[in-house]
This record gives sequence, structure tokens and C-alpha cells, in this order.
Amino acid sequence: MRKSIATVSVSGTLQEKLVAVAEAGFDGVELFENDLITTALSPAQVRRQAADLGLTIDLYQPFRDLDSSSGERFRANLRRAERKFALMHELGVDTMLVCSNVSDDAVADDTLLAEQLHTAAEAAAAHGIVLAYEALAWGRYVDDYRHAWRIVERVDHPALGTCLDSFHILSRGSDPAGIRKIPGAKIAFVQLADAPLLAMDVLQWSRHYRCFPGQGGFDVVSLTEHVLATGYDGPLSLEVFNDVFRKSDNRRTARDAMRSLIALEGDTARMATGEPLATPQHAPTPTGFAFAELAAPPDSGVADLLRSLGFRHTGRHRTKPVQLWQQGDARVLVNAGGATPQLSAIGLESPDPERAAGRAEDLLSPVLPREWAPDEAKLDAVAAPDGTALFFCRTGHDDHVDWQQDFLPVAGTTEREAGVTRIDHVALSQPWNQFDEATLFYRSVLGLQPHDIVELPDPYGLLRSRAISGPGDAVRIALNVAEVRDEEHITEPPTQHVALGCDDLIATARRLHANGVPILAVPDNYYADLEARFELAPELLADLRELGLLYDRDERGEYLHLYTKTVGQVFFEIVQRVDHYAGYGAHNAPVRLTVQHAGGH
Amino acid sequence: MRKSIATVSVSGTLQEKLVAVAEAGFDGVELFENDLITTALSPAQVRRQAADLGLTIDLYQPFRDLDSSSGERFRANLRRAERKFALMHELGVDTMLVCSNVSDDAVADDTLLAEQLHTAAEAAAAHGIVLAYEALAWGRYVDDYRHAWRIVERVDHPALGTCLDSFHILSRGSDPAGIRKIPGAKIAFVQLADAPLLAMDVLQWSRHYRCFPGQGGFDVVSLTEHVLATGYDGPLSLEVFNDVFRKSDNRRTARDAMRSLIALEGDTARMATGEPLATPQHAPTPTGFAFAELAAPPDSGVADLLRSLGFRHTGRHRTKPVQLWQQGDARVLVNAGGATPQLSAIGLESPDPERAAGRAEDLLSPVLPREWAPDEAKLDAVAAPDGTALFFCRTGHDDHVDWQQDFLPVAGTTEREAGVTRIDHVALSQPWNQFDEATLFYRSVLGLQPHDIVELPDPYGLLRSRAISGPGDAVRIALNVAEVRDEEHITEPPTQHVALGCDDLIATARRLHANGVPILAVPDNYYADLEARFELAPELLADLRELGLLYDRDERGEYLHLYTKTVGQVFFEIVQRVDHYAGYGAHNAPVRLTVQHAGGH
Repeated sequence: MRKSIATVSVSGTLQEKLVAVAEAGFDGVELFENDLITTALSPAQVRRQAADLGLTIDLYQPFRDLDSSSGERFRANLRRAERKFALMHELGVDTMLVCSNVSDDAVADDTLLAEQLHTAAEAAAAHGIVLAYEALAWGRYVDDYRHAWRIVERVDHPALGTCLDSFHILSRGSDPAGIRKIPGAKIAFVQLADAPLLAMDVLQWSRHYRCFPGQGGFDVVSLTEHVLATGYDGPLSLEVFNDVFRKSDNRRTARDAMRSLIALEGDTARMATGEPLATPQHAPTPTGFAFAELAAPPDSGVADLLRSLGFRHTGRHRTKPVQLWQQGDARVLVNAGGATPQLSAIGLESPDPERAAGRAEDLLSPVLPREWAPDEAKLDAVAAPDGTALFFCRTGHDDHVDWQQDFLPVAGTTEREAGVTRIDHVALSQPWNQFDEATLFYRSVLGLQPHDIVELPDPYGLLRSRAISGPGDAVRIALNVAEVRDEEHITEPPTQHVALGCDDLIATARRLHANGVPILAVPDNYYADLEARFELAPELLADLRELGLLYDRDERGEYLHLYTKTVGQVFFEIVQRVDHYAGYGAHNAPVRLTVQHAGGH
Repeated sequence: MRKSIATVSVSGTLQEKLVAVAEAGFDGVELFENDLITTALSPAQVRRQAADLGLTIDLYQPFRDLDSSSGERFRANLRRAERKFALMHELGVDTMLVCSNVSDDAVADDTLLAEQLHTAAEAAAAHGIVLAYEALAWGRYVDDYRHAWRIVERVDHPALGTCLDSFHILSRGSDPAGIRKIPGAKIAFVQLADAPLLAMDVLQWSRHYRCFPGQGGFDVVSLTEHVLATGYDGPLSLEVFNDVFRKSDNRRTARDAMRSLIALEGDTARMATGEPLATPQHAPTPTGFAFAELAAPPDSGVADLLRSLGFRHTGRHRTKPVQLWQQGDARVLVNAGGATPQLSAIGLESPDPERAAGRAEDLLSPVLPREWAPDEAKLDAVAAPDGTALFFCRTGHDDHVDWQQDFLPVAGTTEREAGVTRIDHVALSQPWNQFDEATLFYRSVLGLQPHDIVELPDPYGLLRSRAISGPGDAVRIALNVAEVRDEEHITEPPTQHVALGCDDLIATARRLHANGVPILAVPDNYYADLEARFELAPELLADLRELGLLYDRDERGEYLHLYTKTVGQVFFEIVQRVDHYAGYGAHNAPVRLTVQHAGGH
């Protein structure tokens, strides 16, 4: 399948856009008119530059408001189209996007509209050009893809096809299954975009919030499957208007766009045939956390913190300055490096680590270079968008080398064991402009499911948080973006955290206090509110207050949690989930954030 | 009128908020529950801190979902309310905001709802507390202020009044005149907020886009006039949820909030009585530009640029290193200072400069310190939000000292006069988080009218632009906010520009070319598009292309314009308005921005 992208989807001048798109491996572009008008390159130079980069120009777009209830205006519009046909000849592009009319003088009559489109198609045919007629979701008369197709069918001219745009179809809630009724040969072009599910004016939604397939809430896979079922064999092209992408690095955006299309291609094929493609290869979803790895300079306090949390130093790497610490099934590696303690890597349990890494590579994830001693386990790792290393592990199974074999046992003992049983989740701070990219990465590369974005008030801004989880919640990752003032008050670097699970947080917290763990202080007012809201048993409330625990409850269960103070750029949360509570205590986040800002970290 | 503000309206910890609000001169606060829960201060300490700062706590808010179709749930809610009553006693606050229920178990029957509110009012009365019942625009059953009032009227209890919130009323398009039917004594609280007119989900609109009265599109003045006509004499309180304010400097936000309330108070009084208040005093709107002032180091090229633009050096300041340059009625001062050329000040013609400055001061604008020699004109100046100095001038009238008298004539001549007749407008770049503040400033301090915000694509982001103008467009200011990547590609500082008007731009442009003015190059593709869109006469098109002119046309007239290259942080635009064209050539802005980014500046 040819892969294309509209130049409007990435930032930069036209030349910069073409280079970024070519480097990401696209076959072609839709040339957005504004990008041509603002460049000093002549059309012939644009044609040549694209060709030199190995790109075809698949579409010239958009041509607006072609039809008119005024005959005079229609003639002026045709004249305007003729000028663009001549330009397209210079550019070497043979398909023009014609959007349904949004103006007051739009033709509101199928017969007249078909007549005018026929006239235009005749003119286009004389230049060897095909018109791709598209229903804008906010078109004045034609706003539905089925209506656009009825008109195209009625005109029945070889120089007129329809253009399908997933945003315009799915934003209206239209059933895309109707696409199957359109002969593939009459689909002149296909534009794909996803979008978060927002309740807002569709024009604004379209112009500012589109994103790449897999980043939003639309089922672009099913739509694409319908398209391919028609026999359409033209490009699948991404057309995304997004305020964040507009001001982000265009190479990064283009690569993310390509990742989106490769994943879409794979998902669509699987939907159609039940079989994965060779590329991207299919891989099973991670089934748990093998470890969390902290990079920390010696004497940074991380070892002391782990010890007081009840961890035992159980191993040391045979060749690298890495310690293994363990408590229950929670494993933490401490890598003696870096200037300040931070969460540098996560080990994910995978039933098939090689395929997992292979899929990640197929989806353009940077494979991390590793050097192994001859007898070491060959761990595959890729970089997540925020730079965190992800290792694919298979711990404790005979069918695969266990990464733990690289650690020599250490005769460490502890009398401070605190009841931690597992890693419950990790929380990763994301750069402000990589939230969509991260969503796509975890969804497409790892097969995890994104949940709704929640907004958490911070004293100096807002934190947006999105949980990502796998089947049975065996892997849970919280992605956070801080939209917070970065002036004199706020100098803390973004923090990551590791949440450790236990089965009885009150008992565990007593141990942690006894062990001297520095625990984040919770304001007394919080407990007064808790009492008002939940009618907790006085004994429980007293325990929560005494131990500095936070509490949440929903229809599925209860959540008890506490936070350690921050060491470097990382802190720990200790959590207990009662019954089927599946959240993260979002209601309590403002308390944590305020205390952390106030210096309680 | 007592002035109050909700703590949620400004950023920071509770302590920081109280300090900022007190410094801005507020009388009291609404205490947002979340701010209490997250502070380490006890309720008694909060009460004391507020009192020490001269602030009363006027409202505790919000109490959500009080009523319930389940009797058991209602009893639990009452218990929850009781806990808050006790807390309010410690805080010393006697009014609690009760929002209409948004949950599934909201009572959907006026009789039962009135019964439950009566029960709650009885409980509140026992604590000396009044409940202020408010219809949220997205309430499940009660979503209109008239409905909330009907319930309150029906309950008829001294401990139950209604709370009016301008956002909830005006966002629904309800007629606020119905407020006049409510006895003032039954209005327990009044919350004011403005908002831009957006077509989006009202909950999201409310939570993220509220702004201070005068910054948005609501008629808060009329609503307030209705409120005051009822005899209501409680506080007017600002409750604003705004993503930008959340992460902005809280002192600045609080001062802006106070400016908004002072202006609102004045406007409301004028609406009610036809007479202005003593404070803020009324002042006439500016009637034109007296001058634009550039700060520029010597040899920066500004003098050469002005000369080539056809200006004549006509005066030098008697005591300061300031030159007066003139062409037609366009006057430019060049102040020998600063590291790089920039637009530092604007002189505005005012029929009454003293009152204009007095009003600005009443509205908390920083009055700029000036030193005058004994015989100099005492020019009053205030700082606009972006730091630009605004001078109030009365040029060439016998009733007022003319600022030009401070300039000694210079025997400058020119043979390069180019036909510039006036300053058409100035364009000022605004910091990203001061767009609302600037809108309020120009509207309330100067009496100018803001127009719609337009979005202009930039190769590395978006520019948002809002024009502000006075009667007859004698004063036009364009406020621009660049939402543009600030990485390695984009190192240009924000630019301001001065647009000079002329009556025949083609003739003027020929002179400018002959004078050697460095004019921004316009891509040839732009002219091909212009020809396609407008069917311009070939001679006109040839002239535009030859001279590097941009062109726009709408139903009111035509606009021809060109740009000089940038000197330091400022450039000039030369414009010709044909007939009644009132815009700024927004369609052409992407061309300018792309060429400027590409180094054509």
C-alpha cells in the first residue's frame, strides 16, 4: 500500500517538510496549497525536489467552493480551477481534492450540483486530471460521504471520483460500512486521520485536534478495511491538522506518522484475513513487569531507600555495575550511573521477547545498542518516546534464557521486609508535545490499551494523565504531561515514579514507618474531607491519618496508597488495591502535587 | 460594592493565593474546597491568615450533589454537609455554595427537591449558615437559574438563597433580565465570569476557558446591572477556571481580576444611571495616533530606513536624545537607546489626556515615571501589559500643550517623499499568557473594541491575532500571540510593526523601490494564486508582482500592502485601503511569516 501524507501535517517550510517526510519513508505527499503559495520554489522546482527525494505528489489540495447557485460565480470558479489545472501540470500531479461547498451560495440541489461537477470533470479531463470530491463534515449542502458518492455516481465521469476522509466520516458518527458499496475505481483518494473524542464544534475539532490513526478515539482500522475491500489501490494518506504537531520537530512527527500507517496496515490486514503481515510482525502483549531500573550515582540514597522499603539486595551483575534488589515479585535494578537518581528502564515480561523487539523495530522504535559478554542473556531493548528503555524479558521460564542468570547471588538478608509483592504500575512524565506519540507507541508497539485522559489540578497548572494497560491490568503505565508554569517557583525536573503493590497497606505502612522511610506528609484537612465523603470506620480513618495514607473508593473497590519523598527525579508509591479497583487515586493527586511543590518531597 | 474572588482563579498554594489577592485589593475570597484540602494550614490558621491580610472568607465552595432520589443517599449527603458546616465554623465563613446535582440520582421533581433543600437549610440554619443554591449549566435536573430560583422561592427558608453565576446563565443563552424578578435578599451570592464565545461542550468550556469580565464575549455588564437592581448588596465575586491563569503569575492575574471588577463597576453604574463613577473616571476614547516611538541604538539603520521610506527628520528633543521624523501626518520618534531597534512607545491622540491617564491609573495601569524640564509638555504615559509605553497626547489644539513644542525644528529636507499620510495601525506581539489581559486593558482602559481572534498559520506553529479598534477605526492595534516552536530553527525575537497608510500604494511602492527600501520578497506562486482567485486586471497584477505587493479584497473594499525587512525587532508595513476595507490582509499573513522565517527579513 502506498503511503502518503499531507504537507500540512508537519511543521516547517515546504522544503523542510519534503525532506522530513522522505526520510520517514513515505512514498508521496498531498501538496497543501498554502505550502506552495508561501514557497519561493517554482512549481517545477517543487516537482524536481520531490522527485529527487523519491516522493510523488499524489494530490493537490484543497480546491474549495467549486459549485455555485450563481452561474456567473460558477464560471469564475471554473476559471479558477483551470488556473490550478495548469499549475498541477507543472507540478506533475494528476488528482485534485475538491471539497464540498461551505459557502452561502452552495448548490443545494443534486441535479444542478451533478451538472456543475460534470462540467468541471470535463475541464479536468482535458488536462488529464481527476477530481476527488469530498464531503466536508461542515459542508453547506453535502456533508456526508454517502451524499458525495451519490453525486459522483450520478455524474458518472471518468475524471470524477470521490475522496474519503476518515475524520469527516467518523466525526459525524456515520457508519463507514457504506464505503463497501463504492467501487474502488471510483474512490479517487483516501485521507486518514484520527481524533480524540471531543464534544466541540466539528470545524475547530478538525482544524486543531486531528491526530494520526491510533492516537485518538476513532476506529480508523475498520474504516480502512472497508476502503480496501472496495479494491481501492491508491495511496493511504494522512491529513492531520494539529496545533502541537505544527510546532514540533517535523522529522519526529513524520516518523510517528509512518509508525501509525505501518501499524494501521498490519491491523487492517489482520482484520481482513485473520493473519498478521510479515511486517509489522505480530507480537504478544506484555504480561507483567520484570523489573524497574533506576540509574543512580553511588551514595545517592537509593540503596538506603530500597532497604528501608523492605527490599533485599539479592544479586550483582556479572559484568556491569548493576545491583538487583527484590521484595516479593518486585524487582528493582540499580545501575550506578547518571548524575541524579531516575527511572531509566523498565523490564516487561513477554511470552516472546524476540518477536516483541522485532515488532518494535518494524514500527520504527529505536533499538538500543547493547553489548553482551559471551555468556550473558541477550536482552532486547527499545527506547520509548520519552527515552525510557524498555527491555523484553521472559523471567523464570525454561523456554528462554532468564535475564536473572546474569546476576551473581548476593548473601543479602533483611529483617525489614514490608510486604511489597509486585510492581503495580510505573508513571512516566512525558514532554508536552509527545503525548500523542506515546499513546501510539504503547498501543501499537506493545498492544496496550489507552484509557481516557484525566486532568489533575496542580497548584501551578494542570497535569494531564492517561493510563495505559494490558489484559488483566498485569501491565499498567501512567503517562503524565505537566502543563505547569516553568518559572522561578517551579524548578523541579519532571519526576517518574514506581508504584509497588502490597496486600495490606496498613501493615506495610507500619513497617515502612518503623524502617524510617521518608513518607510524604498528607495535610490533616484531607482526612476531614475523607471522613465527610466516605463515612469511614473511625479505626480505619485513624490508621490512614496516623500513617499518611491516601484513600479512594469507587463502585469496583478501594485504593489505599502512600508516597515516599522524591530522590533525585524518582519516588515510590506503595498501593493496595481492594477488590477490583482499577484506577490510580486521581482524586488524591492534587494533594500529592501540592505537598510535593511545597517542598514536602 | 465588595469585591471578592474565588481562590481557584489564581495559581499557587493557598497561602500564595491569599497574599496575591490581598495585594490586588480584594475584600474577600471564595474558598475553593480543593485549596483547603491540599494545604497544611488548619482551618483556624487559614481564617487567621485571611484576616491578617484584610480578607474575609465570603463563601465555601462547592458542595456538590446534595439532593438524592435515594433517601439513604440524601441522609449520607446531609451528614457530609454537617461536616462541612463544622469546618465552616472554624473558618469563620457563613455561606456555602450548593450546586445543582449532576449525578444520576439527582432529584427530578420540584416538590421532593424543595423538601430536601428545606431539610438542608434547617440544618444549615442551626449553624448560622446560609446555603447558596446554584444551577449548573450542566445540572441533571436543574440547569437554569430561573429553575433554581423557583425551588428557592418554594422552600422559602431564611437559610436558603440562590447563587447567580454569569457563566452558567450566559453560556446557556438565558435572558438575564429575569434576575430582576428575584428579591435581592434572596440572592445569597453572585459569581461573575466571562468567556470567549466557543461552540463546545459547556462543561469543558466552563472548566478551561472562563475569563474575567471584559475579556470574553458575554455581556456581563447587563447581567450585573440586573443583579444590582434587585437590591443585592453582597460581594461581586470572580470565579474563573482558566488553563492559562492556572499557570501564570498569581499577582499579575489578581491585579488583572481587580481591573476587571473596577471597570465592571463603572460600566454597570453608567448603564444604571447614565453617569460615570468618580472611580474609575470616564475618559474619551483615543482619536488617532500621535506618533510611534522606536528605541534604537545609533547607527542601527533606523534613520536610514525612515529616510528611504520618505520620512523627513523635522525635530530634535530639547533635552533628550530623541528625534522627530515626519511624513504627512505620520510621526515617528527615534529614541537613541536600547540594544536593538524596537517599538517602545505609542502616542495616542486623546481629547482629554489627563482624564485618559487618570482612568488608566484608576484601572491599575502602571503610570510611567517621567521627568520633565520646567518648560516641557507634561505627557502622561502608562505601560500597556506588554510593556509598550502609551502616551496620551493632544496634538495641534490650542486647548492643550502640544508635545511637539518640546522639539526644536531641524532643517531637514527630503526629495524622497513617498506619499505616506498616516499611521494606519501598529501590531504588538504579546506574551503567550497575556492575551486576555491585553484585551481587557485596551477595552477597559482605552475604550477600544476587540474583534474576533483569527488564527494565522506559521510554518512553525500558529499566530493568533486580535484587532482592537476605536470609533471610525482612527486607532487600530493588532495584538499577536505566536504559538510557535522556540527551538533551534526559530531564534527571532518577537517583532512589532508599524503600518503606515498611503493613498496610492503602487506609486508609493515605486518611490520606495527607487529609495532603496529593503522590501520583503513575495513568492511568485502567491501571484499565480492571486490571479486565480481574483481575476485581477493584468496591469494591476503585473504591478503587484513587480513591486512585491500583497493584495486582499472583501465585500467592503480592497487592501494593498507591503512589508519592509526587519530591523532589530521592528518592521514597517505600508498599506492602502480602498473603499471601506477594514481588515489587515490576514489571508496574506502566512506568506509574510514564511518569508520572514526563511531569512527574508
